[in-house]
Amino acid sequence: MGPSHHAVKPSKNSGHTHYIVFGNRPRYTSIEITCEEGSYVPYLDLRDYLDRLEQAGKLKRITKPVEADWEISAVGRVAFRDIPESTRPALLFENVDGSDIPVTLGILGGSRQIYGLALEVEPTPQAITTAWRKAGDSPIPPITVEEGPVKDTILKGDQADVTVFPVPTWTVGEDPGPYLTAPYVVTKDPETGAHNVGTYRTQVKEPRKLGVWINFVQDGRKHVEMWEEREKPTPVAIVLGSEPTLGLCSVSRVPYGVEEYAMAGGLRREPIEIIPAETVDLMVPARAEIVIEGYFRLGELEEEGPFGEYTGYMGPVAQSYVMDVTCITHRSKPIYQAFLSQMPPSESSMIRSIGRESAVAKNLIDNLRLPVIDVHLLEASGAASYMAIRGRWEHEGQSRQAILGAWTVDPTLGKICVAVDEDIDIRDPFALNWALSFRMQPDRDVFQVPGYPAVRLDPSQADESVPQLDTSRRLSTKMGVDATKKHTYPPIAFPPSDHIERVRADWAAYWGI
Amino acid sequence: MGPSHHAVKPSKNSGHTHYIVFGNRPRYTSIEITCEEGSYVPYLDLRDYLDRLEQAGKLKRITKPVEADWEISAVGRVAFRDIPESTRPALLFENVDGSDIPVTLGILGGSRQIYGLALEVEPTPQAITTAWRKAGDSPIPPITVEEGPVKDTILKGDQADVTVFPVPTWTVGEDPGPYLTAPYVVTKDPETGAHNVGTYRTQVKEPRKLGVWINFVQDGRKHVEMWEEREKPTPVAIVLGSEPTLGLCSVSRVPYGVEEYAMAGGLRREPIEIIPAETVDLMVPARAEIVIEGYFRLGELEEEGPFGEYTGYMGPVAQSYVMDVTCITHRSKPIYQAFLSQMPPSESSMIRSIGRESAVAKNLIDNLRLPVIDVHLLEASGAASYMAIRGRWEHEGQSRQAILGAWTVDPTLGKICVAVDEDIDIRDPFALNWALSFRMQPDRDVFQVPGYPAVRLDPSQADESVPQLDTSRRLSTKMGVDATKKHTYPPIAFPPSDHIERVRADWAAYWGI
Repeated sequence: MGPSHHAVKPSKNSGHTHYIVFGNRPRYTSIEITCEEGSYVPYLDLRDYLDRLEQAGKLKRITKPVEADWEISAVGRVAFRDIPESTRPALLFENVDGSDIPVTLGILGGSRQIYGLALEVEPTPQAITTAWRKAGDSPIPPITVEEGPVKDTILKGDQADVTVFPVPTWTVGEDPGPYLTAPYVVTKDPETGAHNVGTYRTQVKEPRKLGVWINFVQDGRKHVEMWEEREKPTPVAIVLGSEPTLGLCSVSRVPYGVEEYAMAGGLRREPIEIIPAETVDLMVPARAEIVIEGYFRLGELEEEGPFGEYTGYMGPVAQSYVMDVTCITHRSKPIYQAFLSQMPPSESSMIRSIGRESAVAKNLIDNLRLPVIDVHLLEASGAASYMAIRGRWEHEGQSRQAILGAWTVDPTLGKICVAVDEDIDIRDPFALNWALSFRMQPDRDVFQVPGYPAVRLDPSQADESVPQLDTSRRLSTKMGVDATKKHTYPPIAFPPSDHIERVRADWAAYWGI
Repeated sequence: MGPSHHAVKPSKNSGHTHYIVFGNRPRYTSIEITCEEGSYVPYLDLRDYLDRLEQAGKLKRITKPVEADWEISAVGRVAFRDIPESTRPALLFENVDGSDIPVTLGILGGSRQIYGLALEVEPTPQAITTAWRKAGDSPIPPITVEEGPVKDTILKGDQADVTVFPVPTWTVGEDPGPYLTAPYVVTKDPETGAHNVGTYRTQVKEPRKLGVWINFVQDGRKHVEMWEEREKPTPVAIVLGSEPTLGLCSVSRVPYGVEEYAMAGGLRREPIEIIPAETVDLMVPARAEIVIEGYFRLGELEEEGPFGEYTGYMGPVAQSYVMDVTCITHRSKPIYQAFLSQMPPSESSMIRSIGRESAVAKNLIDNLRLPVIDVHLLEASGAASYMAIRGRWEHEGQSRQAILGAWTVDPTLGKICVAVDEDIDIRDPFALNWALSFRMQPDRDVFQVPGYPAVRLDPSQADESVPQLDTSRRLSTKMGVDATKKHTYPPIAFPPSDHIERVRADWAAYWGI
């Protein structure tokens, strides 16, 4: 089946064919209602997904004219600070700098509810982790198509100009200029042709010149190094805006060797449609909003940054890849997508926390067969420094085995790693602190592992005068805290649950409402 | 000036005389408006204070009939769990067990806002701590009066029956029966006559027999031991319901030698009116709702408990003092007051956290002259196990000096004690965890002090088979965490504050509201 600009196409999900109508698709009507297996329909593209968000009350259109060079960042920040997660919508700025290109943010990580909508699962840790684990077990390779709306407009050579897009500036006064925060950067292995998709901070330097920082633990870097070994410039395509699963894969730590295109297919339970780029030998999503094509200059690095990072501090000035733009293709009336980054809570800490905790949970549950119920990377830690593991422990020390197991998945994560019992909701800071308060004795239950890979960009390691990318910063000490019960405990001092339920059921009578 | 049942009495606060009219007193009208010094009027009694709570929207009358033996505890718990602190009211159950004695709870620690109303100050940590520190510096001794409404009804001998009051049962299925949770237990030093007022768990055993557990670190215990040395039964009076400051003093750790009556006078800036008890040689508040008089049996202890404790676990069965009731006096139509206790968040953890953190702040700021801004005992820790200190540190190591200073005020508190910089709001778990994430290196910044007084009733210390009051449980290890910046840091990645303010000021325009 080829790609389609039509409003109607047959779906092949449910065993029987049914039709998809844009804007009015037969999807479940509220996130409270579980999607029935037979009625599942993946999002076709960004627009389709935005329709769904709006229908669910999770997209706020902002018509007031705004400026990209300060206002989008400030409005996004206020939304994240002042609106509780449960009601926080994604944002669509319809009037940016007088351009007709709208800017959307928060559509993947505006909240856990939005993340659930992106994956089309209930927004529970269990459902989300299960979706990731299933996708990891059953990736679906992309299918190649011959035409797609990303080719509506093709701008080559001098015609290509990244600055026509209203790219925001984020940490105004610190960042050197506008940054793409939600680029899905596509590279490929020159030997096998396997594609990688990753999100790296990308500075807009000139109309046809970008600075892209890929750090040493990120898979895209391996590809670049392979091209450099062959003394060839690295072909690159930057995707901006697609159906939501590709973005979720792009920011997550998908194991090397698993293509994000296939992982996204696994998540959406239908293949991603890809199409050849125009000027580089790479495949790009046929229904993306915007694709920027080009090459990383061979053997050349250039200063890029600093940039406001997920830690809540300014990240380093880096020597980064220099991308020369050869072509831009985009849909008619493209929509520009960004992630709200910087200080947590932010969209990027939300997305990363969910993706990373699913990867850790998968290792602990599927590989190590530990009785783990939930893994959480606290957003307050930029989804990096502080991890908690909840388990139904079966014997002594198993909680510590889980801590060590977690540290092996991505050894930079979890400078603090706390294990708790099954009755503790690790997503509730109150419950987690209660466990630390009454299930932990410091001398018995706190242990450290020195010389272990450090949380990236952790400013507590050394003075600012030590460059943030100095190799001396690559190691630090991990602290494990076993806040599980090590012996029998007195009963919990709480009313019987049937009393609580009875009162809740009759609350209106008590409260006179 | 004698006591008064009249609705109008002259006030001596403001330098000029003005009149107090019950139910319509010239107090500030909203907790947002700071009380002007000249217009300050202390609460006369519990009723006056309930009026004020109701006027501020902080008292919910529950008219539905409820049962004391399970329902008050369950309704209170649901209110604490399901209603956010900012809107949570105190409760007044008007129809309990068909009796005409109403039960109120949450009136001191239903929320920080309510606590502020009790003290008649803004509900900020700074204002509350300042009120406590001022009261500590300028206690006002009580004045003796000749009559008072607490004598409206006097019941001696067989007429006295504690079980006529609708005393709730709290942890149903675990507690052995109903418990007074808000008794203000008055004892005196047989030598100096100095009175102590403290709140101890008190089991209603029989109509004229109570079990009172005073643990070894509590001041009332010293008094009892002095009476026992003299081979005399200890005279005791249990106050139930008064103007609010006495209750706040009763649950706080007022230094030995400072009378709670005088401390309460300092807090309310006017003396407490006291009056002799009927059958014991003690002074009691003249405007209390209920006073139970009696004696602790000489040299006799009896099993009492277990009781659902502030840790969230069942506390021990204790060998406790046995109080024989000799007399009950009460106002006409008395109101029975209780604290919601057990698992945090609860009223008692809220009250204790505020009182205790004020005591620690006073030591650090006034005595040690440390640049401390705020001290917080996390409610999740039962206001005991987990402490945080915020400071404007002036030189290296000062943050650790503050941690050690805090551990010396009440050495049982702060099994975990974290010091942070001035920009961290220690009352926001997100901010505290952010500081732990990016301003702390475990090997450099975490230190332990073994063999220090333990958090009372901490079940993590030993197996349940080791009695909770075993002396082996009196010591444990403290853990200090210095989560302050130890060197220069990169700038914070956050929009300029004037951008945030500008957006907030214009929010309606962005949001289309």
